[in-house]
Amino acid sequence: MANKKSSRSKKAGLPPGSLVYVGEGQRHETIVSYCSFNEHSIERKELSSLDEACVAPKEGDVLWLDINGLQNIEVVEKIGKFFNLHSLVLEDILNTTKRPKFEDFGDYLFVILKVVHPISDGGRFVAEQVSIVLGKNFVLSFQEIDRHDAFASVRERLNSGRGRLRRMAADYLAYALLDSVVDGYFDALEVLGENLEQLEHEAITSASEETLTEIHHAKRQTLQFRRAVWPLREIMSGIIREECDLIAKSTMVYLRDVYDHVVEVIDVLEADRDIAAGLLEIYLSGISNRLNAVMKVLTVITTIFMPLTFIAGVYGMNFEYMPELTWRYGYPMVMAIMAVIGIGMALFFRRRHWL
Amino acid sequence: MANKKSSRSKKAGLPPGSLVYVGEGQRHETIVSYCSFNEHSIERKELSSLDEACVAPKEGDVLWLDINGLQNIEVVEKIGKFFNLHSLVLEDILNTTKRPKFEDFGDYLFVILKVVHPISDGGRFVAEQVSIVLGKNFVLSFQEIDRHDAFASVRERLNSGRGRLRRMAADYLAYALLDSVVDGYFDALEVLGENLEQLEHEAITSASEETLTEIHHAKRQTLQFRRAVWPLREIMSGIIREECDLIAKSTMVYLRDVYDHVVEVIDVLEADRDIAAGLLEIYLSGISNRLNAVMKVLTVITTIFMPLTFIAGVYGMNFEYMPELTWRYGYPMVMAIMAVIGIGMALFFRRRHWL
Amino acid sequence: MANKKSSRSKKAGLPPGSLVYVGEGQRHETIVSYCSFNEHSIERKELSSLDEACVAPKEGDVLWLDINGLQNIEVVEKIGKFFNLHSLVLEDILNTTKRPKFEDFGDYLFVILKVVHPISDGGRFVAEQVSIVLGKNFVLSFQEIDRHDAFASVRERLNSGRGRLRRMAADYLAYALLDSVVDGYFDALEVLGENLEQLEHEAITSASEETLTEIHHAKRQTLQFRRAVWPLREIMSGIIREECDLIAKSTMVYLRDVYDHVVEVIDVLEADRDIAAGLLEIYLSGISNRLNAVMKVLTVITTIFMPLTFIAGVYGMNFEYMPELTWRYGYPMVMAIMAVIGIGMALFFRRRHWL
Amino acid sequence: MANKKSSRSKKAGLPPGSLVYVGEGQRHETIVSYCSFNEHSIERKELSSLDEACVAPKEGDVLWLDINGLQNIEVVEKIGKFFNLHSLVLEDILNTTKRPKFEDFGDYLFVILKVVHPISDGGRFVAEQVSIVLGKNFVLSFQEIDRHDAFASVRERLNSGRGRLRRMAADYLAYALLDSVVDGYFDALEVLGENLEQLEHEAITSASEETLTEIHHAKRQTLQFRRAVWPLREIMSGIIREECDLIAKSTMVYLRDVYDHVVEVIDVLEADRDIAAGLLEIYLSGISNRLNAVMKVLTVITTIFMPLTFIAGVYGMNFEYMPELTWRYGYPMVMAIMAVIGIGMALFFRRRHWL
Amino acid sequence: MANKKSSRSKKAGLPPGSLVYVGEGQRHETIVSYCSFNEHSIERKELSSLDEACVAPKEGDVLWLDINGLQNIEVVEKIGKFFNLHSLVLEDILNTTKRPKFEDFGDYLFVILKVVHPISDGGRFVAEQVSIVLGKNFVLSFQEIDRHDAFASVRERLNSGRGRLRRMAADYLAYALLDSVVDGYFDALEVLGENLEQLEHEAITSASEETLTEIHHAKRQTLQFRRAVWPLREIMSGIIREECDLIAKSTMVYLRDVYDHVVEVIDVLEADRDIAAGLLEIYLSGISNRLNAVMKVLTVITTIFMPLTFIAGVYGMNFEYMPELTWRYGYPMVMAIMAVIGIGMALFFRRRHWL
Repeated sequence: MANKKSSRSKKAGLPPGSLVYVGEGQRHETIVSYCSFNEHSIERKELSSLDEACVAPKEGDVLWLDINGLQNIEVVEKIGKFFNLHSLVLEDILNTTKRPKFEDFGDYLFVILKVVHPISDGGRFVAEQVSIVLGKNFVLSFQEIDRHDAFASVRERLNSGRGRLRRMAADYLAYALLDSVVDGYFDALEVLGENLEQLEHEAITSASEETLTEIHHAKRQTLQFRRAVWPLREIMSGIIREECDLIAKSTMVYLRDVYDHVVEVIDVLEADRDIAAGLLEIYLSGISNRLNAVMKVLTVITTIFMPLTFIAGVYGMNFEYMPELTWRYGYPMVMAIMAVIGIGMALFFRRRHWL
Repeated sequence: MANKKSSRSKKAGLPPGSLVYVGEGQRHETIVSYCSFNEHSIERKELSSLDEACVAPKEGDVLWLDINGLQNIEVVEKIGKFFNLHSLVLEDILNTTKRPKFEDFGDYLFVILKVVHPISDGGRFVAEQVSIVLGKNFVLSFQEIDRHDAFASVRERLNSGRGRLRRMAADYLAYALLDSVVDGYFDALEVLGENLEQLEHEAITSASEETLTEIHHAKRQTLQFRRAVWPLREIMSGIIREECDLIAKSTMVYLRDVYDHVVEVIDVLEADRDIAAGLLEIYLSGISNRLNAVMKVLTVITTIFMPLTFIAGVYGMNFEYMPELTWRYGYPMVMAIMAVIGIGMALFFRRRHWL
Repeated sequence: MANKKSSRSKKAGLPPGSLVYVGEGQRHETIVSYCSFNEHSIERKELSSLDEACVAPKEGDVLWLDINGLQNIEVVEKIGKFFNLHSLVLEDILNTTKRPKFEDFGDYLFVILKVVHPISDGGRFVAEQVSIVLGKNFVLSFQEIDRHDAFASVRERLNSGRGRLRRMAADYLAYALLDSVVDGYFDALEVLGENLEQLEHEAITSASEETLTEIHHAKRQTLQFRRAVWPLREIMSGIIREECDLIAKSTMVYLRDVYDHVVEVIDVLEADRDIAAGLLEIYLSGISNRLNAVMKVLTVITTIFMPLTFIAGVYGMNFEYMPELTWRYGYPMVMAIMAVIGIGMALFFRRRHWL
Repeated sequence: MANKKSSRSKKAGLPPGSLVYVGEGQRHETIVSYCSFNEHSIERKELSSLDEACVAPKEGDVLWLDINGLQNIEVVEKIGKFFNLHSLVLEDILNTTKRPKFEDFGDYLFVILKVVHPISDGGRFVAEQVSIVLGKNFVLSFQEIDRHDAFASVRERLNSGRGRLRRMAADYLAYALLDSVVDGYFDALEVLGENLEQLEHEAITSASEETLTEIHHAKRQTLQFRRAVWPLREIMSGIIREECDLIAKSTMVYLRDVYDHVVEVIDVLEADRDIAAGLLEIYLSGISNRLNAVMKVLTVITTIFMPLTFIAGVYGMNFEYMPELTWRYGYPMVMAIMAVIGIGMALFFRRRHWL
Repeated sequence: MANKKSSRSKKAGLPPGSLVYVGEGQRHETIVSYCSFNEHSIERKELSSLDEACVAPKEGDVLWLDINGLQNIEVVEKIGKFFNLHSLVLEDILNTTKRPKFEDFGDYLFVILKVVHPISDGGRFVAEQVSIVLGKNFVLSFQEIDRHDAFASVRERLNSGRGRLRRMAADYLAYALLDSVVDGYFDALEVLGENLEQLEHEAITSASEETLTEIHHAKRQTLQFRRAVWPLREIMSGIIREECDLIAKSTMVYLRDVYDHVVEVIDVLEADRDIAAGLLEIYLSGISNRLNAVMKVLTVITTIFMPLTFIAGVYGMNFEYMPELTWRYGYPMVMAIMAVIGIGMALFFRRRHWL
């Protein structure tokens, strides 16, 4: 989850409703997938011209337009005009630093979500903004990054005709999209959980300064993940309480299921946050333990050799009258005493578990 | 409580309502216990064929089907179809990573719980998912793991005819099942509490790096236990507030009692969490204390022997004119001075309680 | 406050409503005090036979039965039957591990409280369960431990006829009992506060490993005290909001006063909890300070004697051509230099406040 | 803020409504100031006899009785009887350990507040209890300590006739009293803030064990200040929501202003609490930093002199065949080598910023 | 954000409604900008005389008076009188230590906000108070500091006629002012975020005592920023819920957008607060790591040279019968043994990663 705060300032000072893409993606192509289906038939294509996108849904069909990649502002603008979306909606779609939110505009419902998917190198995530507009017989979805398709499983189910997706109305499609986003969180949670467990192992066994950086990073990732999912709880409960004609009663039970999943994700995230917070404590305990070990070595060495060196020093003195010096067995005697002292000390420390 | 996050991803991408067993149990047999009773008679058997399970309850009897072990999906599917359960209910029963929850489907009530039972080796717990379906005159219960029967005491009371269980309707049976799950928490709490107390003792007296791992583990266990019980509070208060025909007024007072017990369990868990959190502080204090002790030894040794070695060094110098060296009593005099210094230092440190 | 979790498991597996004494008190006698009074007369006796207890209150009188000691289950059972109490109420009275609670059974109100009183040895508390049943013209009170009478002051006031107690109805008596329990908290708070202050003094001045254990114990005591009092806030506000015939309007203003006292107790307890939590920080700071002091001594000694020993070592070398050695004033000169270095170092450290 | 818990126990065991002064003030005189005013005239006097106090307010006038010093219980009792106050109100006025509270008795409103004023020696506060009774055309105020007049500014404004105070009714006077109490908090906050800043400076630069005690004391002061102000928020919002004839609509806007001030005070206090909590962390960081500095000195000295002493030791050995010893330039050579090693080490440590 | 508590006391003791400037700005000129516009024309000037300011807005025009700099109390007083503002409103405008707030006075709405803008030197902020009064066809805005214009972008848009600003009524102008303040927060957040990241880098790599001060400062800045923005959430949700004629329904959707932005700002601030709180932990971990490194150096040096010095001491003893001393190869042999011991020790420490 790259820090996106800086890109936000592109907009400062512009009149509200100005359409500017605020995000970090490099300019790629914007892909518009058109899909119109009913229980019996399905028509799918990738649109080449913008005018093709702006067709009213066929009678009895559900229309799904999926716009992947937001750098092409014209596309969004044109679709917005055709489907009669409020200018603030278009602005929100393009501003990919938005917090997840839900708004009911009467004719259509508007939801902003964050898709979280892990990227290859260890334990890092990208949060991609996804906006969904649910109208009477159409669903519009906008994905920020074109390299990743958050809705692949839904697309595949639509094609195969498996499940009840083709038989249902637009609201069920919107639910399916929401569901696939929330299902994606579980995958990300797994990666996060594994990463945390590995870090914990590292923190206990062999903590370097690098580990500290890693721990801090993991903590931040967890917090940012949480920030992406947290508002969803309120949003889902808002949708469930919402009384509007766009969502059928029978779909509600499915939306409640999504709500349950969101609560579960948040539960796990809270636990992960506790684990991440505990990592630093473990790391610090590890450092303290190692410091203790080092100090014990130092103390043992000092305590053994200081008395011995002192004794050697004594017999190095140059007094004329030191009877031991002239004694035939003085030298071996002193060496023996030294050995006794040294070995005695070592045994003493071993008994106190310092060696 | 093994971490179950990873098994959750089996489901990602499947259409909602797909029946897949999500859990960690190895494949064992699925045991279906049939029990139909009224005040006067009781009929109990372990069913061999699935068709036997799907019998409508006898007039005036309460039917209890207990399915122990969830790996046999067909059983669940068949029973679900016979008792007309929603597909999402079946999905929830089979997905043993669900958060505890309660839902009222009109014709039946559906509750998911976690049974927590300690396993043999020190202070570890298994959280087993249990689902209960309460219909007009039947109760269905689903247990995740076949090696453990969470409802043994209820079964035994039914057989013996003790208490009012046989005289009451299905709602009282459902209450009895809930109650036996919550009673099980108290046993687990005891094990947890003893474990924490032992760890605290260890942390104060003889903390090794192993203790650190143990403390961390205990902290996690407490958190996971809490996660299993916490939602139950809301669930129970939801059931109590619920106005539905399936639960008689007279049963409500018993359910309120279960609610009180859940609150008590959570209270103790909160206290245990505080204790577990405090363990690390105690552990760190212990390390600091020991470091202090080590440093004192080092300082005492250094402070005693450094001056002595210095004096020996002085009289080891080779100056030609050192009057003390030729003095007859130089050597014993110096030795006496050294003894005075050494003993004086030792007494000084003893007075400061460093020795 | 002894840890009572373990005794709870006596009940596991029994049918709900089974009367078993769950607690830790040894088996003592159960004392039943009978008291029937009106404004003009009072009749008091300690009952010897159970049948005497089961007398309907006299017309116009208020009856107060105080059962002190719960080991005699028959007494509780008989009284319960006579006054027509719900079996769960009797179970709660006997299970002294219950959380404080309040329930309105229509004919009577039922309150469970914890009396906290300090025991002789430093800063320890016992939490005794007290149950109060308020009926139309009677009050039943049940005390767990017979050696301690939580209601002595009420009894004494009744006898003396002081205050308005004798002129009022049963609800005022129940209030007086509640009030005397809450007043007892203030005494316990004082003991707790003094204990904390003494520990704080110890932690700053002379922290031993024993202090650590004491601090930890005080923390736990505070938490358990809090657990005993905390639910009372909700209970009192529940009683105040309750609209029932058993409590007169004029009594309500007194119950609000009790509520205020409970809030005050909780306030002080929260402050005590902060103090207890801060004790460990102070203790750790003290250890760090002492470690610093030790290290300074070590460093000073090392820094003074290492250079001196080095110089002595230099003039202990056996080179043939060392002009200083043959110089007449070499020895006093070197000694003087050593003295200058040693004293200089000592002064330097004194200026840096290390000595 | 002296700890007042202990004085509370004077009351334990007394019947509710007993009038006993609970507080710490020594017995001083009780001063009763009488003030009756309307827009045109004002009459002020210090009352000598109690009977003078008990005069009904003049027609069209507002009466303000300010009782300063609570040790004279008779005064309070007499006034209470004359103005027909509930016995619990009188008890609360005299019990200066009460939590701030607000109660509507129909005929009059009753507010308990804490006045916080700094006392001369650094950063300490006294919390004095002030009770205000607002009747139809009178205001009674009770101050705990007679040496301090919390209402001096109001008194002065009344005399001078400045502002709208003289033109308004009793409710505005009560507001003015409240306002002057809350204004006093800002002065106390300033003293507290300066104290905290000074402590922070001390903690960073020169932390002694005394600083630790000071920090702990500041933390406690902040908490106790908070405890005195915190309930006021709820009280003020209670007064604002209150619909009663005693407070005119036009006064409400002023009370809302007081509410805003209280919220501001709490805001600053919360920030101060964070600062106070952070002080210990800074203090501990400071200790750690100093420990590091000490250890570096020790290590530098040891690392420089140990090799030198070793070399001197080598040439102090008494082997017969040590060619260097007889070499003419052996001594200066060795001295030069030692100098190179010593200076090299010192430079190395300087480069690592240890010196 | 300079600490403004001290300036607050200027007001203590004054009657409520007294107009005194409470703030820290030095006395600069007060600039009054007059702007009257409709869709077709705009009239802008800086007013020289106060009387010019007090002109009723032209029929069909929207009037915007922007008062920049509050030291000139007369201006505020005169405008207040002309537009008929409550005296408490004027007092609040001049008291720049107020908490953000919103009040509906019927004829006009009154909002106090804090503008946060970074000042040149690293990571410091100034919080400037801005008050907005929205009347039927006029908007009054008051800025505390004249050197900074928080509304520059609005002014510029008005002039250019870009956007819908000129076409809309006074409520939209008020919205635009609010929006520009909230947009300013994002800029400040960026500066804050960069500062925190830099500090984190510093804390990990090279923490000096200065870093500690910087960290503490950053923590405080974050808290004060939060304090400035936090109340805005409640204020905005209050405005949105408000039903009044002064704000058109069509403007509400824009205000909801501002509300969303405020929530986003608070989200980022909460994350920044976590980061700031984590900095100290990192700093302390860094110190501990460095201490460990220092101790390892000390231990390695001591452990290598102590045995060597001891051996040299042994052969410096003056016993008459020490066969090694007269042995031809004694000296090189001992030197070789010493080298083996020294190199062996060094290798041993390298293997344990201490070197």
